[in-house]
Amino acid sequence: MRSRVDRYSPPVVRVVVEVMPKPEILDPQGQAIARALPGLGFTGVGAVRQGKRFEMVIEATEDEALRQAAAMAETLLANPVIEDFRVHRQG
Amino acid sequence: MRSRVDRYSPPVVRVVVEVMPKPEILDPQGQAIARALPGLGFTGVGAVRQGKRFEMVIEATEDEALRQAAAMAETLLANPVIEDFRVHRQG
Repeated sequence: MRSRVDRYSPPVVRVVVEVMPKPEILDPQGQAIARALPGLGFTGVGAVRQGKRFEMVIEATEDEALRQAAAMAETLLANPVIEDFRVHRQG
Repeated sequence: MRSRVDRYSPPVVRVVVEVMPKPEILDPQGQAIARALPGLGFTGVGAVRQGKRFEMVIEATEDEALRQAAAMAETLLANPVIEDFRVHRQG
């Protein structure tokens, strides 16, 4: 149930943008982690990939917020030549 | 339904570790992004936080893989003083 305050506030959406190196792109950070793990006692761990995760709050309807976040990912948060991204509502 | 090959292979779990700066910690990377957005035509975006996302494959049962990933996050992938982390199965 929405309160009267909610009803008159602009909609606000918490959005997550996940950015990962494309599968065919070398990931030196992930490889460095994979190489460090056995020395720390972690065995049986492979295919480590390191990417980025962004959280933000967008004043818009959900559809518009997700559309804006995807545009942000393409222009600023990710490098679409070497990275894939995924946008979703938080929670 | 599991095939005979699956049944005799060691279990393999795809695990995600998400690492984010704690809410009370300053996040200069997130702030830099938030400041750049209006100049790129994105308005109404705030509270930008930048963290890390790791994907990996662990040869273990699901419970054991998640336990291992949490131990890795505490010792190598995150700095628990300034970062929170979350571990979950991929997909």
